Parts: sequence; C-alpha cells; structure tokens
Amino acid sequence: MSNRISDAKSEIRNRPIGIFDSGVGGLTVYRALHERLPNERFVYLGDTARVPYGTKSLATVERYAIENSKFLEARGIKLLVVACNTASALALPAIRDAVNVEVMGVIEPGARAAIATANGKPIGVIATEATVQSHAYAKAIDAIDHSARVVERACPLFVALAEEGWVDTGVTRTVAASYLNDFEGEVLGALVMGCTHYPILRSVISSVIGDNVPLIDSGAATAAEVESLLRARGLAHPERESLADERKLCDDLDHFFVTDAAERFAKVAERFLGSAPSVLEAVEVWGHDELRTN
Amino acid sequence: MSNRISDAKSEIRNRPIGIFDSGVGGLTVYRALHERLPNERFVYLGDTARVPYGTKSLATVERYAIENSKFLEARGIKLLVVACNTASALALPAIRDAVNVEVMGVIEPGARAAIATANGKPIGVIATEATVQSHAYAKAIDAIDHSARVVERACPLFVALAEEGWVDTGVTRTVAASYLNDFEGEVLGALVMGCTHYPILRSVISSVIGDNVPLIDSGAATAAEVESLLRARGLAHPERESLADERKLCDDLDHFFVTDAAERFAKVAERFLGSAPSVLEAVEVWGHDELRTN
Repeated sequence: MSNRISDAKSEIRNRPIGIFDSGVGGLTVYRALHERLPNERFVYLGDTARVPYGTKSLATVERYAIENSKFLEARGIKLLVVACNTASALALPAIRDAVNVEVMGVIEPGARAAIATANGKPIGVIATEATVQSHAYAKAIDAIDHSARVVERACPLFVALAEEGWVDTGVTRTVAASYLNDFEGEVLGALVMGCTHYPILRSVISSVIGDNVPLIDSGAATAAEVESLLRARGLAHPERESLADERKLCDDLDHFFVTDAAERFAKVAERFLGSAPSVLEAVEVWGHDELRTN
Repeated sequence: MSNRISDAKSEIRNRPIGIFDSGVGGLTVYRALHERLPNERFVYLGDTARVPYGTKSLATVERYAIENSKFLEARGIKLLVVACNTASALALPAIRDAVNVEVMGVIEPGARAAIATANGKPIGVIATEATVQSHAYAKAIDAIDHSARVVERACPLFVALAEEGWVDTGVTRTVAASYLNDFEGEVLGALVMGCTHYPILRSVISSVIGDNVPLIDSGAATAAEVESLLRARGLAHPERESLADERKLCDDLDHFFVTDAAERFAKVAERFLGSAPSVLEAVEVWGHDELRTN
C-alpha cells in the first residue's frame, strides 16, 4: 500500500506544471517559474485568439479561463498556475470549481510579497483596466493587512508598448511618467506590477517611480510560492542529473500552445525571453470540451 | 406583379444597414455613414469579446467575421458594411459565401479614393499588423492602377492611444513621428488611414505627415460608395419628413450590439462620437447559430 502511494506520488512528481495566460505576457511568469524550478517541465497555453482579457467582462473572462484550464488539465499537469492577472482577479473560484488540480493565481502571492516589502508604507498597484476595476489587489492586501493603504492605477498602454518592443524609449518614459504621476505625494513602500507584461518595462517603471521604491513582480512572487508548495507536498520533480545547469528557456522539455497566430507569439516570445519556443502548437480550446488541433 | 415587386422593394428600403467591427473603432465608419445617409437606420455590432482582430490569423478572423455577419443578417438588414479593415482584408470572400445580403468592405473604397486623390504620386498606407501583412490595400490599389507605388506601415500603438483618448498629446505625436518616419523621402500623394481607429488621431497624423498630404478615411470613402449603391438600386430609405435635420448620432433609431463589456464600449463611444448609444445590448454571436442574450 505505501509502495503504491509512493508510486502514485512519483508519477505525479514527473508531471508538468500548467501555465495559462491570455497571450504572450505570461511568459514572464514562465521565466520566473523556470528560473526557480529548473527541474520542472512546463506546459504553457497562451489564449492568443481571445487576447486581451483586460478589457472584457467577468462572465467572458470566466468562460475563457475555464476552457483554458480544462485544456491544460487534459495534458496531465500536477498544478495549474493562472499567470494572467485579469483571470486571477476574476476567475479563480470558477476555475477551481471546473478542474481537479490545485490552482494558483498571481494576485495573492503578489499581495503577500508587497505587504512583506512595504513595511507599513502605502502600496501602489499598476495593472490593466479590468484588474484595477476589480480591486483584486486592494482586496487581497486588505484581507491580509487591514491597515495597509493601497493606491491603484490602470496603465492600458503598457501592454502594447511591451509587445512592440518599445522598452527603453522616450515614448515609454513619457507614458510611464503620465501614469505614475498618480502616485505623486505618496511615499510608496512597494509598487506591484499587476500585469504580466509590465516586468518587460521594469527599468523604465523603476526609473520613473524612483529606485527607492521596490517593484513587486507578481509572477516572481508566484514562482516562489509554487516552489514552496511543491516542496511542502513532496511533489517537486526529483533533481535531474546536471539538468539544472543545462536547462534553457523554451527548450523542448517545455511545450507551448497558442489558440491563434503562433508566428506572432514566437516573435514576441523572442523579444521577451531572448528565445522562441522549441515546441509550439496552435490548438482550439473552445466548444464541447473537445480539443481540435488546427 | 409590378405592385408586388414594388412592395418588396419598399420593404427592403425600410430595412436597416448592418455594420460590424471587431470593437469600437467601427464607430468612425458608423459616423461617416450616418452623416451621408441620415435617413437610414443602422444596426452596429462590435465584437468586443474577441477584439482585436489585427493580431489574429486568417482562419480565426474568417470565423469571427462569419458569426458576426450571420448575427446581423438575422436582424433583417438590407446591406452589410464590414467596417473592420482586418476583416475586410482577410474575410470578405468567406463572408459573401456565408450570407445572402450584399457585403461592402472598407479596403476597396479606400483604395479607389486614394488613387483618385494621389494623382500618380506614391500612396502611403497605415494600418494594423494583420492588414499590412495581408497587403490588402497594396493589392486592391494594384488591381485598379498597376502603375501606382504603395508604401505600407503598421502602427499598432495607434489603437490603444485612440481608445485611451490620448488624441492630442506629446506621446501620440512622438509615436506618430516614429511610425511615419518610414515615409520620409516619399512625396506622398495620399495617406490611407487603413484602420477604423485612426481617424480619431487624424489631426496628429496630419500634422506629422504634413498638411499637404491628403488623408484618406476608408470609412468615409465607404460611406460614399454605400450611398451611391443604394441610390443606384433604388434601395435608399425614402426621405423621412424633416428627419435629416433632427437625426442625431446614437439616437434610438440605431441599435448597437456588443459581444462583451457594454459599459466600456459606451465610454469609448462617448469619447469617439461625443455621445453614447441610446440602445446598446450585449449578445453572444458564436456557437450553433443561436442568439443568446446575456
């Protein structure tokens, strides 16, 4: 019996970790997970046919998130990371109802990291319109530390700027200055980058808000919590011999799926990660719970 | 018999004109149609659940366009205007196969207007990535005037800037200067705004490219061709008594549908048109040809 349990656990350990995002932005979360957990394999789904989620309604985001989650569950994952902040903000309960694997969003880890860093000072949050309107970070922070003051600001142009590769340009600095101007007069203890794209613009955001304000990358905070969860449960992948040293981003141990426009995804992945996925496939995730490959 | 034909024609004359777009951008085409044809009623569908189309593949854009077109056909329209440049560029043949009403895209009217204006000089085209990659304008222009020289440039940030309402800002001017820099050295005879959002940024685009370069608004060119087509076929709505004077944008003679996030649509509509739709409804257009209201 205990052998069977240990066999079952060993089988689970070998399973990949699932990650979904509305598109390409979640690659920053993939990168953070990959850095922390080089022994793990990852299955990434970017819902590029329906990106962006940040301007869509609760019902629609829930429907898309459930379809994505079921697709990944069917690939035999041991844990699901919802990399998309909007989906994490709006759809975690719906996702947890829909699938049988453990689900981790990025909002709560980001909120915890912000509180741990801010040292009682106000916490700034920058995110998409939908995430800000949901006040998901403010609520998550309030649930942990009722005394924390949170100031939120939507920065809709950041996604387009990051995808264009306009990382260190005058335009991006001017846009950042205009958005972050809202925090003037606040002595921020931390600024949460509450959208997966924003770490791509990290240096500009940091130079505008000031080096003295720690930036919280929710994806990196989530990766740390995933590591700790897997260790605690004994579900981390056993160390592969010298794998950690050799492991590269986007190598063929990790599988990438998109719901549309694989070529554009590969191009932006190259821009974000420095390399395009070795294994990248276009799939459909909607309708009748069937999976049809394009 | 001739009475019955004339009855049928009269019935058709009274039908509304259908317009669909991937989202809110097509409102500039609605505005152009409304100005030219104040006696007509319009039914507008913005596919806000799946916007944008400009970064999606041919197969996906075709599928979305067909679903939108069938939805509007079921509302009893007399003519379908595909306001979305990407859908016009990629999906017109598929739409024409799928519905039984006459279908008018925005690319060919824009191409014709550009040739008529350019006077043999090179024609510039600015549009989304998908429209530029399809070379739809270059092909349409080439089919009419084989000797015309066409220079195309994708301007992906313009959509986000227009929706943010950053119409006359330093950022928008800097972005425009960076994109339009590609036309340096060309003495353009016309610059086609090949995306429905771009007329919102008209004054900035014009000041950067130079007042001497005529800007072609494909939506306005399409409205002119729609007027001429309806007149030629005797399908224009008979003049309503003094309606033309009283008719306002977004009044309750025009019905607006969105596939998601009606509130955001209304907000951006207000920004684009100066008024939000009186009649605005969220609908689903996908799956089994059924129509389900949210």
